[in-house]
Amino acid sequence: MNSHGANIFEISKKNNIDLNEIMDFSSNINPLGPSKKALDYLKENLNLLSAYPDVDYVDLKNSISKYTSVSSENIILGLGSTEILKDSIKFFAPKKAMILSPCYSEYERELKAIGAEVFEFNLDESSDFKVDVEEIISNINDAKIELFVFANPNNPTGTIFTRDEIEMILNKTHVNLIIDETYVEFTDRDVFSSTKLIDKYENIIVVRGTSKFFGLPGIRLGYGLTSNRNLLLNYEENETLWEINSAADICGRVMFSDDEYIQKVFNFIKDEREKILSELESIKNLKAYESYGNFILVKILDGMNSTSLREKLIEDKIIIRDCKTFKNLDDSFFRFCILGKDENEMLVEKLRKFYEVK
Amino acid sequence: MNSHGANIFEISKKNNIDLNEIMDFSSNINPLGPSKKALDYLKENLNLLSAYPDVDYVDLKNSISKYTSVSSENIILGLGSTEILKDSIKFFAPKKAMILSPCYSEYERELKAIGAEVFEFNLDESSDFKVDVEEIISNINDAKIELFVFANPNNPTGTIFTRDEIEMILNKTHVNLIIDETYVEFTDRDVFSSTKLIDKYENIIVVRGTSKFFGLPGIRLGYGLTSNRNLLLNYEENETLWEINSAADICGRVMFSDDEYIQKVFNFIKDEREKILSELESIKNLKAYESYGNFILVKILDGMNSTSLREKLIEDKIIIRDCKTFKNLDDSFFRFCILGKDENEMLVEKLRKFYEVK
Repeated sequence: MNSHGANIFEISKKNNIDLNEIMDFSSNINPLGPSKKALDYLKENLNLLSAYPDVDYVDLKNSISKYTSVSSENIILGLGSTEILKDSIKFFAPKKAMILSPCYSEYERELKAIGAEVFEFNLDESSDFKVDVEEIISNINDAKIELFVFANPNNPTGTIFTRDEIEMILNKTHVNLIIDETYVEFTDRDVFSSTKLIDKYENIIVVRGTSKFFGLPGIRLGYGLTSNRNLLLNYEENETLWEINSAADICGRVMFSDDEYIQKVFNFIKDEREKILSELESIKNLKAYESYGNFILVKILDGMNSTSLREKLIEDKIIIRDCKTFKNLDDSFFRFCILGKDENEMLVEKLRKFYEVK
Repeated sequence: MNSHGANIFEISKKNNIDLNEIMDFSSNINPLGPSKKALDYLKENLNLLSAYPDVDYVDLKNSISKYTSVSSENIILGLGSTEILKDSIKFFAPKKAMILSPCYSEYERELKAIGAEVFEFNLDESSDFKVDVEEIISNINDAKIELFVFANPNNPTGTIFTRDEIEMILNKTHVNLIIDETYVEFTDRDVFSSTKLIDKYENIIVVRGTSKFFGLPGIRLGYGLTSNRNLLLNYEENETLWEINSAADICGRVMFSDDEYIQKVFNFIKDEREKILSELESIKNLKAYESYGNFILVKILDGMNSTSLREKLIEDKIIIRDCKTFKNLDDSFFRFCILGKDENEMLVEKLRKFYEVK
């Protein structure tokens, strides 16, 4: 298993399951698939693969600029959000950094790779993994944290800061922020996204991908939003000539303006999330946590642990994420993402069978 | 102009020429276009963009392995050959490095970026830019060069080493070699490619791309071939989770085994190269150099310099590469690549007009 969910190629081979039949509840990819407009546009323009990409990616950056309301010159591109994350961490090169615990494992990996001391802010199960921003602020100041890397909302707990809270952190500390907004599009961007802070603060970068909400992990298109001159300059000096390939460029030029698609994905996930959460409430031995993403964290109160549950579900071609590899969690937790209506119902039914109806 | 030829997007806008009408003799891209099999396969498998790429790229590496006869575990992938070049230079981190002059400008840029002292081995016009391998060897030994980065054949001069000569360098020095084989597929690989040295020597890496011969600069697929354990390990530790996207992966799985296509491209370039060279011989004030690539270097013996020639030809939607930005060359040199029959004839005709028939 890699840190982005299951390696479905491996599972498919090992368990002799057709790749197309696997219900992958572990990868947090929007089940409606990519924007048809974007894929059609790519199909019609495959001839562009015979030319070098525009080295300045003018059209793509304009498209992202319209979508995020951040000006083109404050946009950087990367081979997926992971590359932007990695490069930003290298740029800030903090001696002391802070992450939430549990969180996406790459933050710690990249921070340790550059020799940073990593403070883990433990999210507390007893308060449903929610966090008080004043507590974050005093922790940053007390430990003299130079860089705070977090996802908003946080995976796998769904912990979220409002933009106002993030601005409070910026005003009451001297910390740099890397804000991973991989899942922010599944919630109310007006309240939670930090894109509006980009012009005002130089010490933040917002990192976004197109794998989860836009359902195109195959194109590896990530982008960063920042007004930090040195970071932008550093990026320009260190980048290879082309940061992304033309397939990513072409899809990106279209998908960010496919408003109908964007609304449809948002509504679908919202509705299914509410439905599933209400159904899980009726299952006696499970506790599901509130979520702002397209995934739900569940605690097993009694019964088969999540490792066994995962194994058991693979027999039915269902893959969930057991949470024992997340720090501060254990095998009483699992996470799954929202797939299509039928798949979701099937999963809930299995869980009901295993963990009893109230 | 970037170092890969003209920025046709810019030229198109500035001169109000339709992008599709530009005859780009500057980018060294095979004019027959990409393998139809590969593009069709991509078109049929666009649904794979909705999943993460195989993190191990098993199928793609097997395909490259069959094509190069280098085992899968000695293959690394990158976002174009430029990324592999850059990372390899960082890995070898030489204090003293050597390049040929003139050569592709990225070698020096990347070497200087890591603080290496760069020795330029000047290719001599008087010997038609050919080089004596014994001279290279004594230069490497005398200057205690740790890394020699060169393209084989070399762009823009066409200078080439046989594999036997390269093996001689390996046996008579302690130097590490980065061999950029971007253009080797346009010539006799059995004689000139160093892939057969990979298993025997740990101190070399062969770098290849798919932009020129395979005509797919848009997919940014490069690969490196090396048996150097430390380099392979370093790569594994520093790579982002996915090195290339699925579009590159999918095309790559098919194009390397499209033997018919590969033979066709090779034959076409060979025939056109011979034809053009013989036609250029009849033009009094031009001298063309022997070439092993899909490009030809030409010296203007008398008449309009290459800067003016380039400007003049843009009026006819023709873009050549003037060579004044190459070290050790000046604006009496230009380079052009082989395009389709009609385009080639048109260019030769223009040149005949400007530089007189003998």
